[in-house]
Amino acid sequence: MGIAYLDHASTTPMLPEAIEAMTAQLGQVGNPSSLHAAGRRARRVVEESRETIAGALGARPSEVVFTAGGTEADNLAIKGLYWARKRRRVLVSAVEHHAALDPAHWLADHHGAIVEPLEVDDLGRVHPDTLRAAIERDPDDVALVSVMWANNEVGTVQPIRVLAAIAHEHGIPFHTDAVQAVGQLPVGFAESGVDAMTVSGHKVGGPMGVGALLLSRGADPVPVLHGGGQERDVRSGTLDAPAIAGFAAAVQVAVENQPATAERLSTLRDDLIERVRRAVPDVVLNGDPVNRLPGNAHFSFPGCEGDALLMLLDAKGVECSTGSACSAGVAQPSHVLLAMGQDGVRARGSLRFSLGHTSTKADVDHVAEVIGHVVERARRAGILI
Amino acid sequence: MGIAYLDHASTTPMLPEAIEAMTAQLGQVGNPSSLHAAGRRARRVVEESRETIAGALGARPSEVVFTAGGTEADNLAIKGLYWARKRRRVLVSAVEHHAALDPAHWLADHHGAIVEPLEVDDLGRVHPDTLRAAIERDPDDVALVSVMWANNEVGTVQPIRVLAAIAHEHGIPFHTDAVQAVGQLPVGFAESGVDAMTVSGHKVGGPMGVGALLLSRGADPVPVLHGGGQERDVRSGTLDAPAIAGFAAAVQVAVENQPATAERLSTLRDDLIERVRRAVPDVVLNGDPVNRLPGNAHFSFPGCEGDALLMLLDAKGVECSTGSACSAGVAQPSHVLLAMGQDGVRARGSLRFSLGHTSTKADVDHVAEVIGHVVERARRAGILI
Repeated sequence: MGIAYLDHASTTPMLPEAIEAMTAQLGQVGNPSSLHAAGRRARRVVEESRETIAGALGARPSEVVFTAGGTEADNLAIKGLYWARKRRRVLVSAVEHHAALDPAHWLADHHGAIVEPLEVDDLGRVHPDTLRAAIERDPDDVALVSVMWANNEVGTVQPIRVLAAIAHEHGIPFHTDAVQAVGQLPVGFAESGVDAMTVSGHKVGGPMGVGALLLSRGADPVPVLHGGGQERDVRSGTLDAPAIAGFAAAVQVAVENQPATAERLSTLRDDLIERVRRAVPDVVLNGDPVNRLPGNAHFSFPGCEGDALLMLLDAKGVECSTGSACSAGVAQPSHVLLAMGQDGVRARGSLRFSLGHTSTKADVDHVAEVIGHVVERARRAGILI
Repeated sequence: MGIAYLDHASTTPMLPEAIEAMTAQLGQVGNPSSLHAAGRRARRVVEESRETIAGALGARPSEVVFTAGGTEADNLAIKGLYWARKRRRVLVSAVEHHAALDPAHWLADHHGAIVEPLEVDDLGRVHPDTLRAAIERDPDDVALVSVMWANNEVGTVQPIRVLAAIAHEHGIPFHTDAVQAVGQLPVGFAESGVDAMTVSGHKVGGPMGVGALLLSRGADPVPVLHGGGQERDVRSGTLDAPAIAGFAAAVQVAVENQPATAERLSTLRDDLIERVRRAVPDVVLNGDPVNRLPGNAHFSFPGCEGDALLMLLDAKGVECSTGSACSAGVAQPSHVLLAMGQDGVRARGSLRFSLGHTSTKADVDHVAEVIGHVVERARRAGILI
C-alpha cells in the first residue's frame, strides 16, 4: 500500500498546469515594475494572470490584489479595513482561521479594536440573526465583518450571500476567507456581494507563497506592507511573476473542474464517512452534514487523543490532520470545535480527512482498512488530561 | 546584437542551482507545519535551507525568519521593532529604499512615531557622527536605527559595523537592509553586529516571493502578519518550502562566489564607466567611487531626461533603470539623489546600470556602442520641466 494523502485542506499537490506555467517563468528575468522589455514581459504575465483569476472568480481584474498568500490577505483585509474605517467593532465568526482571528485580537490588544466573535451553532454555522443582532447593538461603530466561506476544519459552508447583505444594510464592509472554498464550491466574487475575499495559491493546486485579496471598488484597506507602491499602493513588494502565473493556471483549472470535482470528491467522501462509521460505530461526524466542503470529513473518535490517531495513521501510510495544520504540534483542543459547543475531551479526539484532486478510491480503501485497528490502539493509550 | 540586461539590482536571473532546488520541490506535497511524513519532509527542506542560509551569512539558524521578500522583511523590522520598543524616534537614513522609508513614514503619520532621516553626504554616505548626534538628541526615546548595507540606486556602501556599534552604545537595535549587498560584498550577520538584517531571494539569484529577516537574540519585533504562529510566532503564513529551497541554493552559491563575482563585476563595471565617459565626456558618476557595489554604475547625463534615455536604450537592446524599479513609471527625481544634494533636473537625468552573474564584456561593448548616440538623441528632446 502506498501513501493515502488526505490532507488537501492543509496543502494540495500542484496541478501539472500550474507547475508548467510557473517553471516556464523561472528561467525568465524581469521585474514587473521595470520599464524595459524584460520588465514589460513580466508585467504582461502578471496582468494576464490577473485577468485569468478575475475571470474565474467573477471579479474585475482591477479588483485582484496579489499577496504572498492567504494569511497575508486576511491580515490586509482585517487590519487594513479596521484602520481605514476608524471604527472600533470587529465582528468575526468564532470559527475563523487563526489568520483572521489573530489579526483581530492583535488589533484589540494594541490598537483599540473591540473584537466580538459571532457565535456558531453545533454544526458550525453563523446564523444571519446572530450577525444582525451583533451589528444592531451599535451599527455605527462596526469597522468590518469577517466570516469565512467554508471552514477549514469541519468543512461547514456559511450563508455568505445572506450575511454580506446584512452587513451592507448598514454600509459595513464584509470580508470572507474563501481559501477552502475555491475549487470545491462555486465561488463568485461580485455575485456573492462580499467586499473583500481571500484566496490562496497552494490550496487550489497552485504554488505556495502566493495568494490574493479581491477587493471591490470602495473597499480601500490601509496597506499592511508599505514600500514600492505596487498593486495600486495597497500591497508593496516585487510582484512574483512566476508564482502568480502558477496561481492563475491553478485557479483556472480548479474553477473549470469545480462541478466535476465536487461531485467526485463528495462521492468519495461519503464513502469514506460510511466506512469509518462501519469500522468505528460510535464515531461522530462534525460539521454540517449537508452544507459542507465536498472534500471534508471531520470526525470525533470518543476516547482517543487526536494526535495519537494522527501518528498511528501516519505509520500506516494515511496522512491527515487534527485540524488546522498551522497550529498543529500544539496539543490543545480546536477553537472551532469548542465554539461549536463541544467539550475539550471530545474536541481533542478529532481528526480531519480532506480530499483533493489526486484523491482516489484507493485512498478511501486504505483508510477503511486501517481505521478500526488504529482507533482501538489509540483507545488503549487513552486520553492524557 | 542581443539584449544587454543591466538591471540586476532590480532582479537578477535565477541561478541554475536555485531553479533546480526549487523545481525539485514543486512536485512534492506537504505543509511544513503538518505532523505526518509529507509535512515532516517539507519541514526538513525548510530547516536545511535555514541552516544553509544561516551558515552562508554568519548567523545561527534560529536567527533566520523567512518572509515573502525584502519588502516584508523591512516592514517587519521597522514596524515590528517600533511597536516592540514603545519608543517614538525612528532614525532611518535619507537614502533608504521605499520598503524601509515608507513603513517609517506610515508609523509617523498614524502611530505616533517621529521619523528623523539621517543625512548623507554628496556620495550618499551616512557619517558616524551624524548618527551619533541624532541619537544623542534624545537617546532614551529611540526605537530603532535603520541604515541599508549598500544603496540600491547609487551603490554606495555604508559603514555598517561602525554605525551599529554607535547604536549599541545606547542599547538601540540596528536594522540594515542588505538586499543589494549579499553576493556582491562580504556580509556577516554576527560579525557586523547588526540586530536585524533584510535579505531577498530574487536579488541573489533565488526566486521572487521569498526573503528573510535575520534577527539576533533579543530583537523581538511585533509581527506584521498574524496567524498560524509559524516562525516562532514572528511571521505567520504557510512556509513556502519550494521557494525557500531555491532561496537557500542561491544564497549558498552567491556567497561562495562572492569574492570572484566582486572582482569580475568591478572590472566589467570600471570598463563600462570608462567607456561611457569616453562617449559622453560630461557624464557624472554618482555615488561613492571607491566604496560601492561591484555591479553598480550610476550616472547623471546632463541635459537628458532619464526616462527618455531608458526607453531609447531599451530600443537598442540595453535594459537598465532610472533607479529603483519599484517607483519607476513615476517621473519624479529620486529621493536618493535629492538627499545627496543634487538638484531635481540633474537627478532626473540619471541612469543605473547594474551588473550581475550573467553579465559579460559583450554587455559592456553593447552599451559603449550605443550610449553616445542615445544621449545625443535624448538631449535633442531636452528635459520636460
